Amino acid sequence: MKNDRFLRALRREPVDATPVWLMRQAGRYLPEYRATRAQAGSFMALATNPELACEVTLQPLRRFELDAAILFSDILTIPDAMGLGLSFAEGEGPRFARPVRTAADVAKLAVPDMEGELRYVMDALRLIRRELDGSVPLIGFSGSPWTLACYMIEGGGSDNFSKIKAMAFSEPAMLHRILEVTTDAVIAYVSAQRAAGAQAIMVFDTWGGVLAPHHYREFSLRYLQRIAREFKRGEGSERTPLILFGKGNAPYLEELAQTGAEGLGVDWLVSLEEARRRTGDRIALQGNLDPATLYASPDAIRSEVRRTLESYGPGPGHVFNLGHGLSPDMNPDHVKVLVDAVHEFSRASA
Amino acid sequence: MKNDRFLRALRREPVDATPVWLMRQAGRYLPEYRATRAQAGSFMALATNPELACEVTLQPLRRFELDAAILFSDILTIPDAMGLGLSFAEGEGPRFARPVRTAADVAKLAVPDMEGELRYVMDALRLIRRELDGSVPLIGFSGSPWTLACYMIEGGGSDNFSKIKAMAFSEPAMLHRILEVTTDAVIAYVSAQRAAGAQAIMVFDTWGGVLAPHHYREFSLRYLQRIAREFKRGEGSERTPLILFGKGNAPYLEELAQTGAEGLGVDWLVSLEEARRRTGDRIALQGNLDPATLYASPDAIRSEVRRTLESYGPGPGHVFNLGHGLSPDMNPDHVKVLVDAVHEFSRASA
Repeated sequence: MKNDRFLRALRREPVDATPVWLMRQAGRYLPEYRATRAQAGSFMALATNPELACEVTLQPLRRFELDAAILFSDILTIPDAMGLGLSFAEGEGPRFARPVRTAADVAKLAVPDMEGELRYVMDALRLIRRELDGSVPLIGFSGSPWTLACYMIEGGGSDNFSKIKAMAFSEPAMLHRILEVTTDAVIAYVSAQRAAGAQAIMVFDTWGGVLAPHHYREFSLRYLQRIAREFKRGEGSERTPLILFGKGNAPYLEELAQTGAEGLGVDWLVSLEEARRRTGDRIALQGNLDPATLYASPDAIRSEVRRTLESYGPGPGHVFNLGHGLSPDMNPDHVKVLVDAVHEFSRASA
Repeated sequence: MKNDRFLRALRREPVDATPVWLMRQAGRYLPEYRATRAQAGSFMALATNPELACEVTLQPLRRFELDAAILFSDILTIPDAMGLGLSFAEGEGPRFARPVRTAADVAKLAVPDMEGELRYVMDALRLIRRELDGSVPLIGFSGSPWTLACYMIEGGGSDNFSKIKAMAFSEPAMLHRILEVTTDAVIAYVSAQRAAGAQAIMVFDTWGGVLAPHHYREFSLRYLQRIAREFKRGEGSERTPLILFGKGNAPYLEELAQTGAEGLGVDWLVSLEEARRRTGDRIALQGNLDPATLYASPDAIRSEVRRTLESYGPGPGHVFNLGHGLSPDMNPDHVKVLVDAVHEFSRASA
């Protein structure tokens, strides 16, 4: 591995400069992504084509000195492979043709074949890994069980999660059955991604933060704990680190740090100083610049990068990232300012 | 006052049953509201007509045993009165025809005349107060300076607050000028509402929770502190309590409890038990049932009401409410179950 800063930081080993990668670093803010996406015809055609998925995964690495690549894919590949029928209407969010609403729908759910319906993901990882040729580590990922269940039950995005929350309140046993099989699938999925070449795994609990604390612990955290426990990631230098990210996870940092995960991704609603104090250096932290910083001037971006590095403070265990993903209207030149500033300022203080 | 539970709870005095009112209790989920709204022709025609605003304010009180009425209005009346041109397109959120973007826009902002451009609000309060005839207290309200500024600068709702955040990062002095004049206007507005008959004031900091901690303290909390300090609310039995509500305010409960406000509205992302512990019984708490509970079965609603009351625990100082407003697709029968359950369970334990 030519550049192993990212993996070293996750092991909380010293680094020459703080590693940085950005959620949604491959995406619509890049003109070359938009060109490849147009060539593919649809988002799903792009995501299910290993060559094109490899191409867009590598695009941001050609522009910016990023310290990791992340598989280009979608968090909803698992429920799609379960037969729910994923599509993306132009300018809208994801839609499932067959959402999960009844006991009969639940009974049909099963763990998909990782080298069958989901082979395109594994093929993409194998290809990207070969193309990266040891330059930087490759991250694989999955949605969290709660987050997948949100889309599976709502049938798409939601403002208020009325259907899944009604199920949580009125039919919790049915929701737990959905979460159990989804968790089985997530564990099989990230294990297969590891076997296909992923060198770190990130689980996105995008919607855990919409739950009241007693519901978060019952319907989200419990299944993250199971993933952290059951994902067979090897030992020593073969160990594949697991990063748990959750928007709105600040109230639960102590509990997340005790899951056994190697890294904890945090959004910008908590300072890294506080996150580090509360997790007691037991886990690497990834984050947490407000993505809207990229709408500001280059000077302001540099100043906020410095503030974020100072908030984490000295010592190992920090992977720089945004607190959420990049947006399509962001300026690639500003992304370069951010990435370069992370290395410049952290190298100076290393 | 025939029913003063709400005001007593805000003074943290004993009550015979926990008072309850619901954010957006007057609104689209009620068929009688939709009829009055249709009669008015547009949302703004309804909100600016004191007789119709009075009518919809009183509608939920005829159905449910609510312990307070809240003025039917919009949080954006102040910037509309500043000349920004508020409108609501059917099925969409608010829009300002003339958003605030340049130094010239900022220079034009001034505190509106409370008995001029905003006289319709004061007339509505005077009329509602007369119609209530001492049955329950009347709540007036305003948006917080940060929340008003979000709409004023973005020009409407926003997913990522890119414009106001870019200003916060790149031109903080300009944003502070906007927030200063808006704060002056909020203080004048809630003072005029008090004079017109409002017996409690609620300030909605709907969007403070989208800010990183250093920005929350600089751009939101600072101005809430000024309102709590400068709102002249009288003394003793004449004192008009101030309630600060903020979606996502859980990280700042200690600081909000020290502002001098009498009440603190919290969303469902923190338990009342934790909120009470952290604020040390220095302030009344209002909240905090997840509004999505209303999508559940009546049994589940009753069980969650009981859980919320138990989470607050014994002793005075609790005003029951949702953690956010009611939605148009909610069932009025479920709202009745909630309201009745609050009184039934809290009376039993009083």
